[in-house]
Amino acid sequence: MSVLKGNALVGQSGGPTAAINASLAGVIRGVFAHRDVIPELYGMRNGIEGFLAGNVVPLLSAFDGEDKLRILEQTPAAALGSCRKKLPDPEKDEAFFVDLIARFKAMDIRYFFYIGGNDSMDTVAKLSAYLAKTDYEMRVVGVPKTIDNDLADTDHTPGFGSAAKYVATTLSEIVRDCAVYRVPAVTIVEIMGRDAGWLTASACLPGAITGEGVDLIYLPERPFSFEQFADDVREAFKRHPNLVVAISEGIRFADGRYVGEGAQSGALDAFGHKYLAGAGKVLESYVKETFGCKVRSFELSLPQRCAAHLASDVDLTEAAELGRSAVSAATEGKTGVMAALERVSDVPYRSAVTFRPVDKIANAIRRVPDAFINEAGNGITPAGVAYLRPLIAGERKVEYRDGLPVHAII
Amino acid sequence: MSVLKGNALVGQSGGPTAAINASLAGVIRGVFAHRDVIPELYGMRNGIEGFLAGNVVPLLSAFDGEDKLRILEQTPAAALGSCRKKLPDPEKDEAFFVDLIARFKAMDIRYFFYIGGNDSMDTVAKLSAYLAKTDYEMRVVGVPKTIDNDLADTDHTPGFGSAAKYVATTLSEIVRDCAVYRVPAVTIVEIMGRDAGWLTASACLPGAITGEGVDLIYLPERPFSFEQFADDVREAFKRHPNLVVAISEGIRFADGRYVGEGAQSGALDAFGHKYLAGAGKVLESYVKETFGCKVRSFELSLPQRCAAHLASDVDLTEAAELGRSAVSAATEGKTGVMAALERVSDVPYRSAVTFRPVDKIANAIRRVPDAFINEAGNGITPAGVAYLRPLIAGERKVEYRDGLPVHAII
Repeated sequence: MSVLKGNALVGQSGGPTAAINASLAGVIRGVFAHRDVIPELYGMRNGIEGFLAGNVVPLLSAFDGEDKLRILEQTPAAALGSCRKKLPDPEKDEAFFVDLIARFKAMDIRYFFYIGGNDSMDTVAKLSAYLAKTDYEMRVVGVPKTIDNDLADTDHTPGFGSAAKYVATTLSEIVRDCAVYRVPAVTIVEIMGRDAGWLTASACLPGAITGEGVDLIYLPERPFSFEQFADDVREAFKRHPNLVVAISEGIRFADGRYVGEGAQSGALDAFGHKYLAGAGKVLESYVKETFGCKVRSFELSLPQRCAAHLASDVDLTEAAELGRSAVSAATEGKTGVMAALERVSDVPYRSAVTFRPVDKIANAIRRVPDAFINEAGNGITPAGVAYLRPLIAGERKVEYRDGLPVHAII
Repeated sequence: MSVLKGNALVGQSGGPTAAINASLAGVIRGVFAHRDVIPELYGMRNGIEGFLAGNVVPLLSAFDGEDKLRILEQTPAAALGSCRKKLPDPEKDEAFFVDLIARFKAMDIRYFFYIGGNDSMDTVAKLSAYLAKTDYEMRVVGVPKTIDNDLADTDHTPGFGSAAKYVATTLSEIVRDCAVYRVPAVTIVEIMGRDAGWLTASACLPGAITGEGVDLIYLPERPFSFEQFADDVREAFKRHPNLVVAISEGIRFADGRYVGEGAQSGALDAFGHKYLAGAGKVLESYVKETFGCKVRSFELSLPQRCAAHLASDVDLTEAAELGRSAVSAATEGKTGVMAALERVSDVPYRSAVTFRPVDKIANAIRRVPDAFINEAGNGITPAGVAYLRPLIAGERKVEYRDGLPVHAII
């Protein structure tokens, strides 16, 4: 392997998480450890879109100590800003890539780290595939993040553990809140996850860990039916009067229609995904109509992905380690890969970093497997609990100032 | 003053908060400190309603150590359960009170502590007024709690500081989340507070403390107008593209109609209050229609009142101190009073416990004063910041097990 000397670029892309800055901190640590080959690390503001606009910022002087990196790690959302720009197909718009590479050359960029989800791995895949056909040597490594945990070829994704810890902690508090009254009531909590129910599945953790948990859990992986839901609620009411129900925003009927579809705008995002919201409100009306009892619904919404004050230590530690390992691997010659997590054992929990070809990851979605969903389709199995439980473990000592967590602003 | 020997009763009533169990812990500590006159403390399950059904639990053996009391203090919502029962008017239903006092006598109850809000102080007022006309000596002291901070005759109420810390922390995280993209977008966050905007006002704290905060804040204390709102949004867009707007669920137009009224069910709770929800959704539609930009809205909902993992240390400490002081004051002869907080100074923050006649408190609502709201009616003044800021200060070291906060179950 040849030693490749030159600068590095790092960017963040896609939706925010509580751990995406921990991965950035890891990349910074990795570059500091390889200063002999990488003299400077530039952050792209707003991902590749900002780079194309010349909007980059040198990072090493700003984060030249563990104290600063720890503050970066406890900062939610993408400190460099994000974008949702998808690169064109290299076969259809080669001019785009010719221009891009000219810009890399001008800054002597030889390393490119992109922290993001599915769509970001598409960028890593296209860029590394194009580079392979040129004589410009540059190494491109993806670092995963998504609260949805639906990336292929990794045991789980950074950002998920912290979001799951937020969901589990908040539901455990909501269960206490709902238990104070004796009148029959149903509280429906809508959780993010369009195609995969991982985050909603983590609603099983309060019950599994404390013995006091939510009553019913519905994921998009199983078809939803009002009749079955009514039966489930009726059964649950036999046990106690205060039901807490966790549903994924993406639950859908057997015919594929989203339960929330009626309440939606039909607007599409830049990638042609439907904006979703409203399954909880639909179920709220259904419960009111069917049971006539007190009922309310709400979405955990943005806090579930940005509640860095409640991050999982396991998650932040792994997120940082993936960032650091991506740099090491690139200096050793890897390109066109994503840093991924392999689970070594559940108890005690141990994971290891591995590298996967990014081209197979970019357009796949990893759903909750059948073995993790109970037969009735309204709860999580012990196997699912065993998978989820270690990912929310541990708490960071968050630095507060005047009552609020301190955030790093780049 | 005569020494009054006998048992004590404690109950919790009204909506949950993150600090109501800290007040319970304080009452327990107070009784331990006066074991010579109070041999046992009974908890009423589900407030006075549970007591009437004979549902009480002895508390001293269950909480005979600081380690157990600290877990109780980090437990959200009413550990004894709550109720919304309002006592009848003693002049109209004396039989009710005759029966109640017979039950007190049977258990040798001589002290009655009720932790709650406005409606709970009504119970304290009625009970103590009735007792004054009988020969059964019993002392009745109220301990305030409400996230709404709208109780009269106290500088602030336990529960508010923790809810305000949740609102401020969550908004500071949401501001970071919303800052990652460059496209114009409005995020509307709906905060609890039917008649008083205290909790929504605490949305000013991220900006005041960190310099990065929400853009616009609307309280029920000022009439809301779509025209003014549109002007405010237009002005704010001149500064940056990602607007975060905090609104109270209770904002209303100059004619008194709630902004959310159109989206509401019209259902009433046990006290004849309208259930509110929907002002955020109304504003979301208005922004979409008027500006055509990306817009979303959501409610902080239950988590803002039960997020005990993020409680304010000042709040929990004061809540416990009020409970403890209530017991001391009762043993010294006080009855028909509420333990209240007096502010001694803002910087450094200091407060003191005082006692107020409960009859004036029960049916008054303390609103955010004009001096705390800016002239434009879309933000909080420095005087308001000075009032709010100390109340969110400090963090407890929360005990976690397997990734989740430990809660006390009674």
